[in-house]
Amino acid sequence: LLLKLKVEYKQITGQDYKAGCPPPENLPVPDNGPSAEDATEEDEVNPWSVTTTNAKGVDYDKLILRFGSSKIEKELVDRIEKVSGQKPHRFLRRGIFFSHRDMHQVLDAYEKHKSFYLYTGRGPSSEAMHVGHLIPFIFTKWLQDVFDIPLVIQLTDDEKYLWKDLSVEECHRFAVENAKDIIACGFDINKTFIFSDLDYMGSSPQFYRNVVKVQKHVTFNQVKGIFGFTDSDCIGKISFPAIQAAPSFSNSFPHIFGERKDIQCLIPCAIDQDPYFRMTRDVAPRIGYPKPALLHSTFFPALQGAQTKMSASDANSSIFLTDSAKQIKNKINKHAFSGGKDTVEEHRQFGGNAEVDVSFMYLTFFLEDDEQLEKIRQDYTSGALLTGELKKILIETLQPMIATHQERRKQVTEELVKQFMTPRPLNFNF
Amino acid sequence: LLLKLKVEYKQITGQDYKAGCPPPENLPVPDNGPSAEDATEEDEVNPWSVTTTNAKGVDYDKLILRFGSSKIEKELVDRIEKVSGQKPHRFLRRGIFFSHRDMHQVLDAYEKHKSFYLYTGRGPSSEAMHVGHLIPFIFTKWLQDVFDIPLVIQLTDDEKYLWKDLSVEECHRFAVENAKDIIACGFDINKTFIFSDLDYMGSSPQFYRNVVKVQKHVTFNQVKGIFGFTDSDCIGKISFPAIQAAPSFSNSFPHIFGERKDIQCLIPCAIDQDPYFRMTRDVAPRIGYPKPALLHSTFFPALQGAQTKMSASDANSSIFLTDSAKQIKNKINKHAFSGGKDTVEEHRQFGGNAEVDVSFMYLTFFLEDDEQLEKIRQDYTSGALLTGELKKILIETLQPMIATHQERRKQVTEELVKQFMTPRPLNFNF
Repeated sequence: LLLKLKVEYKQITGQDYKAGCPPPENLPVPDNGPSAEDATEEDEVNPWSVTTTNAKGVDYDKLILRFGSSKIEKELVDRIEKVSGQKPHRFLRRGIFFSHRDMHQVLDAYEKHKSFYLYTGRGPSSEAMHVGHLIPFIFTKWLQDVFDIPLVIQLTDDEKYLWKDLSVEECHRFAVENAKDIIACGFDINKTFIFSDLDYMGSSPQFYRNVVKVQKHVTFNQVKGIFGFTDSDCIGKISFPAIQAAPSFSNSFPHIFGERKDIQCLIPCAIDQDPYFRMTRDVAPRIGYPKPALLHSTFFPALQGAQTKMSASDANSSIFLTDSAKQIKNKINKHAFSGGKDTVEEHRQFGGNAEVDVSFMYLTFFLEDDEQLEKIRQDYTSGALLTGELKKILIETLQPMIATHQERRKQVTEELVKQFMTPRPLNFNF
Repeated sequence: LLLKLKVEYKQITGQDYKAGCPPPENLPVPDNGPSAEDATEEDEVNPWSVTTTNAKGVDYDKLILRFGSSKIEKELVDRIEKVSGQKPHRFLRRGIFFSHRDMHQVLDAYEKHKSFYLYTGRGPSSEAMHVGHLIPFIFTKWLQDVFDIPLVIQLTDDEKYLWKDLSVEECHRFAVENAKDIIACGFDINKTFIFSDLDYMGSSPQFYRNVVKVQKHVTFNQVKGIFGFTDSDCIGKISFPAIQAAPSFSNSFPHIFGERKDIQCLIPCAIDQDPYFRMTRDVAPRIGYPKPALLHSTFFPALQGAQTKMSASDANSSIFLTDSAKQIKNKINKHAFSGGKDTVEEHRQFGGNAEVDVSFMYLTFFLEDDEQLEKIRQDYTSGALLTGELKKILIETLQPMIATHQERRKQVTEELVKQFMTPRPLNFNF
C-alpha cells in the first residue's frame, strides 16, 4: 500500500517520495527572507553551491529581495567614507560588497563612540587557496585598518570534516595552512585572533556555552528550511550552523571581550554565507545578544565564466596563491573566458563585451585605479583594446600581487601562526 | 492534490502525514536491537521516560530481548568473583545489575592483563539527588575498588540545559552540587575524573574531536529511530547523543590515557541509558575505536510503587540525600507502597506480597546481609512480619546510611570538588 502511495506521490509531485523531504510549500520561512533554495529561481545560492545560467553571474538584485537584505546604496558608501575618514575600498566603490544588514545601525553607534568587532572566516577544505578566497580577507583588513577594531577569524575545520571525505587531522592541517595565507594579507597581530574550531571549541567553555545556547533555540525544521538538510544528513551537519553562529556574540571570546555580551559584531562575507547569519539574527534576541550586522560580497567568478563560483578542487578554474608567474600567464591566456569577438577584425568593428569577460571582471576586483579601469572598459567595449591586450593587463596586475603574497607568506613562521591562533587579549579602546 | 494524498496516507497508515516521519517499517534498526520506543510493548523505557503498568516494575527479561543485550547469568557473576577475587556486590548477587554487553570479553582481556576503564554519569537536573541516583555510583565505586581501574564521570549539564527550562548557569551549578554527592560515595581521587560537559567540552580539543567524529557517523534518521526525536526538536538535542558517546573512547581523555585509543571502556548505568550506547557501539568500529561494554541496572522504584522511576521533582516520590531522619521515617511510613494486607488479622493469615512491596524492594538495594534479607522476605510472605515492622527495618537501614552520606558530603570542600573536576593524570597500571 505504501509503495502504491509513493508511486502516486511521484505522479502528483514529479518527485520521489523521500522521508523527511516535505513538499516545498511546507518549508518554514526563516528570519526575514525565503529559503536560499527557492526552487522557482534560476540562481542557486547556498553555502555549498552557487550556480546560475547567466554569463554575467548571479542576479544580485533578485538575491537581495529573496534574502531580505538591503542594497549598499551610494549613500551608505558615502557615509562609510565620512565616518571612517577614508576613501572607500574599491570593493565598495564598485559594488563588489553590494548588500548589507544593519550597517547604518553600526555606523550610528560608531559615531556615538560605541565600537564594534569584525568576524569573518573560511572553510579550510584544502591547502590551496585561490585569489577569490582573498576577497573577504582583503576587505576585512581594510575595515580593521580604517575603523581600528578587533577581528576574529573562524576556520571551520570541523565543518569540512563533516562535509568532506577528509580526516580530522587533514582538516586541521588545512586550517593552519590557510591561516598562513590569511596572515599574509597583513592583519594586525595585536587586533586579530584566528581560530580553528577543532582547537577553539576545546579551549573555551564560553564559546561552547554559546554554541549550546544557539542549538537550543533552533529546530531541525528550521535548519531544514534554511539549509535544505534532510533526514539522511549526519547530526554533525545538522547542528553545525550553531558553531558558525557563536562567534557573532562577543562573550564567545572572553580573552578579548571579558564577559561583555553587548559588543556589536560586523560580518563581512560572501552572500552564500548569509543563511547562517539569518539564522543567527533570528536566534540572537532570544538568547539576549545583539544581532550581528553583515556586509555581503558578490562571488568571484571562475576563469571559465561567472556561471559558477571557483572551485578549489579544479586547478584550472582559478588562479591559486601558489601559482608561478608563468602559470598565471598560461591560465589566463588559456582559460579566462573572453567577451571578445572571434576575429580581430570583428572585435575592432563591434567591440568586446566587458560584462561577461572574466579578465575584465578580475580587474574590477584587483586593479586599484578607477580611471584606468574605466578606460579599459571603454577601450574593450569600443574594440580599441583586444582580448590579448586585456589579458596582458590582468596578468601584469596579478603576477606582482601573487608574488608579493607568496613573499609575505614565506615570512609567516609557525611561531607567528601560533601567536595569531592563541587565545589572548587584543589591543583596542572601547 | 497533496491534501488528497495526505488523506489517503492517513487512511492507509492510520496516522497523519508528518514531514520527516516516515512510516515505522522504514525505521532503521540500530545496532542489535529494535527501538526503545517500540509501541507494541507495554513498558516504555528510554532516557527520558520509564513507565510500566506492572506493579512489580518493568519486565526486564522482555527488555533484554528488545534491546538485544545479554542477561547477567549466575555464571557471569561467579566469573566476576573469580577474576576480581572479591565477593560479588549485592547488586550483582540480587540481579539489580541484570543485563550486560560484552562483559565476558572485558574479563577475558583483564585475565590477560589487558585492563579497562569505567565510565558512568548523571544528568544534573536539580540540586537534589535521591537514593536511587546513588545506585550506579555505589556499584561503580565497587568496580573501581575490586578491579583497581580509572573512572570518568560525565555530568551532562549541557543535556539538562537543552531539555529543561533552566539556564546554562543553573545546570552548571547543579553539576557541581551533584559532584559533591558523587564524591561523598567515596571515589578514589587518584583514580577518578569528574567532568561537566559545559566545562570539559571547552577544555579538551581531543574530546571535541571525538564528538565530531561520532556526529559525522550518525544520521538524523538514526537518532530518530533510536531516541524518537522529531523535526520540531532543537538541533542541540539531535546532536547531543554524540556527547554522551564520546567518553566511551579512551583518547577523549588525553590527560589520563595519552593518545591511546585502544583501552576498553565499561559503562555501568541504568538500562534506560542503553540507547545512547547502542548508538555508540554501532559507530565505534567505523571510527576505529573499540565498542564500550555495558552493565545495566534495573530502575530504583518510586516510594509509590515500581510502575515509575523516581522523580527528582516530586519530593514525596523518593528519599532524598538531604532528608532528615524524621523525614525519612515519615516518608516511608506515609508513602512507601505496601504489599501487606488491609488488616493485621488478614496479614497474619495470608501474609504480605514482597514482590510489590516498595519497602522490601528498597531493602534488596541497601541491606547487605543476604540471610537477613531472605528471612525478612519469608517472614513478610508468611505474615510473621507486619508492614509496620518491615518499614521500621527499612527506616533503620536508611537513616544511618543517609546520615553517613550527609556527614561525608559535608567534608567535601569546594577545593576537593575542583580537584576531582580538574583534567589531570590518574594513577593506574596498564
